[in-house]
Amino acid sequence: MAEESVIPAAKIREGFTALAREARELYLDAEVAELTSVPDPLSFYREFVSPNKPVVIRGGLDWPALTVWTPQYLRCKAGRLPVSVAVTPNGYADAVNGNNFVMPEERRMILAEFLDIIEQPDSANGVFYIQKQNSNFTEEFDDIIGDAGRDISWATEAFGKSPDAVNFWMGDGRAVTSLHKDHYENLYCVVSGWKKFILIAPTDLPFVPYDIYKPAHYKELKGEFVIQQLDEMPEVPWIPVDPLNPDMERYPEFAHTLCYEVTVNAGDILYLPSLWFHHVRQSHGCIAVNYWYDMEFDIKYNYFKFVEKLAEVQETHSKKVPPRTTMKDSTVS
Amino acid sequence: MAEESVIPAAKIREGFTALAREARELYLDAEVAELTSVPDPLSFYREFVSPNKPVVIRGGLDWPALTVWTPQYLRCKAGRLPVSVAVTPNGYADAVNGNNFVMPEERRMILAEFLDIIEQPDSANGVFYIQKQNSNFTEEFDDIIGDAGRDISWATEAFGKSPDAVNFWMGDGRAVTSLHKDHYENLYCVVSGWKKFILIAPTDLPFVPYDIYKPAHYKELKGEFVIQQLDEMPEVPWIPVDPLNPDMERYPEFAHTLCYEVTVNAGDILYLPSLWFHHVRQSHGCIAVNYWYDMEFDIKYNYFKFVEKLAEVQETHSKKVPPRTTMKDSTVS
Repeated sequence: MAEESVIPAAKIREGFTALAREARELYLDAEVAELTSVPDPLSFYREFVSPNKPVVIRGGLDWPALTVWTPQYLRCKAGRLPVSVAVTPNGYADAVNGNNFVMPEERRMILAEFLDIIEQPDSANGVFYIQKQNSNFTEEFDDIIGDAGRDISWATEAFGKSPDAVNFWMGDGRAVTSLHKDHYENLYCVVSGWKKFILIAPTDLPFVPYDIYKPAHYKELKGEFVIQQLDEMPEVPWIPVDPLNPDMERYPEFAHTLCYEVTVNAGDILYLPSLWFHHVRQSHGCIAVNYWYDMEFDIKYNYFKFVEKLAEVQETHSKKVPPRTTMKDSTVS
Repeated sequence: MAEESVIPAAKIREGFTALAREARELYLDAEVAELTSVPDPLSFYREFVSPNKPVVIRGGLDWPALTVWTPQYLRCKAGRLPVSVAVTPNGYADAVNGNNFVMPEERRMILAEFLDIIEQPDSANGVFYIQKQNSNFTEEFDDIIGDAGRDISWATEAFGKSPDAVNFWMGDGRAVTSLHKDHYENLYCVVSGWKKFILIAPTDLPFVPYDIYKPAHYKELKGEFVIQQLDEMPEVPWIPVDPLNPDMERYPEFAHTLCYEVTVNAGDILYLPSLWFHHVRQSHGCIAVNYWYDMEFDIKYNYFKFVEKLAEVQETHSKKVPPRTTMKDSTVS
């Protein structure tokens, strides 16, 4: 009977290794693909969305925002706009710190105040980043939305639907988004400055460690940032590895991932496919707008969940750690 | 160390069960989807090709062939055309028989002769079927190809390439194509009569048994069909289950598959996605043309191979059968 049998964990491990290797041999490129003009919707869907491959479209934006979104202009047109700002002592919002998953202190201020801090970072305590993914751009930035757009027209045509959320990002050069994945198809548009992405394909999932952390947040008290645990919140599974400085002794499996690096400059669009792990850095004062389109929960997702389940099974039977889950995985992008 | 650990086979089995169940819950339909007009290329790609879902397009053909391809017309226009005909005693070409995988006797004759047999089946010994998948339609049927087409224009636009092969099918109502899968995207067009397909999704792979068979073929000798083994050929992995009458005692796992049934009538087009298992019956004298477009060996295929590998591992460790392979799996459609 199959139910009484056991399978060497090494066989499952061989399967994971073959999955990652064959992905690289079969369809992944050596570098993130680049286009020099926007694709037609069908080609985009067939060549990138369906096979779940990232692509950067150099100079893909023709927005007035590229030239007009100076600090002066933003102050004049939207300076009194209230914005949510993530504040941390070190630039790491939503990231692992010791046994904690630490979220930023959230502060409300007007955009002019935020622009003052970005222009003179030493004038404030901490690292400030507008990174709230509540579709703040379409909800709150009404006065300047016409300089960019409520959607990316060719992407909306390709996906057959409007974006689910459009987010405005602006922040400090020290702010880092830790490695994670989202259940969205993401079009990431850089308006000024640059963003550097590190990307890892979903087929490398078995080599990306997750651990379980206690939720916490930063709070500035009398000029000092402290970490306050949020005991009422459920524990958070998160990736403890910093791809810029991975702890390979503790997480040797991570060495089997293939990290793609791509810099997205002002005027460029990155298509960041659903379920790709990503880590993001940026130039100081970088401004970006990203469009989240709902992903399809189809056969690709279905297979992904199967791999995830097997990775859990392997983990559970090879060392004593809690099983991986992904419930909180979409809180930052 | 993971390498020294073992995993209960039941855990892998649970993964397979969840994969099949979640596929049905997440994206598969209760019945094969139907359209009443041809889709635009982008919608077709997004809604069916990318998620790997079958669809039948009722009345999707506007070919002159639908009205002009009578036996008389075919005799007149193409009667002297040499064709390859698969001949079997029972209608089962490329199917399991005892310990053998039995291929048909291949006979060359002119189309007029074949039409005589289809009109008077009792006049010949055996079941005759034009089923050769060597792109016979574009290679050999030049005189009547204009009544149908060298491609399906909206599909060619969707796939971004021309078909790799176009095959003409005509045969006896007793001819059956046994359960198998192909590495092609398939557009199956029925010109006259009907075809009944039984379809099983690739996510049910772990429940579709494969065994290894000795290759053989039928040969009519003195009016009797005999099975001749082809010892010089490699053994053939094939599916032993007849979905019309499955041997559930011997293959109890097959009960966990979900068999879709769809009848494709004259004028209809079935999109049969790559890697879907299919079993086919037909009305007597049914004429069809199918278009094989190369599939993308992308993340879906990559995940599929992972599931296949795990199914092999499970099989190897739960009973003593040779591992499944798929090398000969595309010999019939």
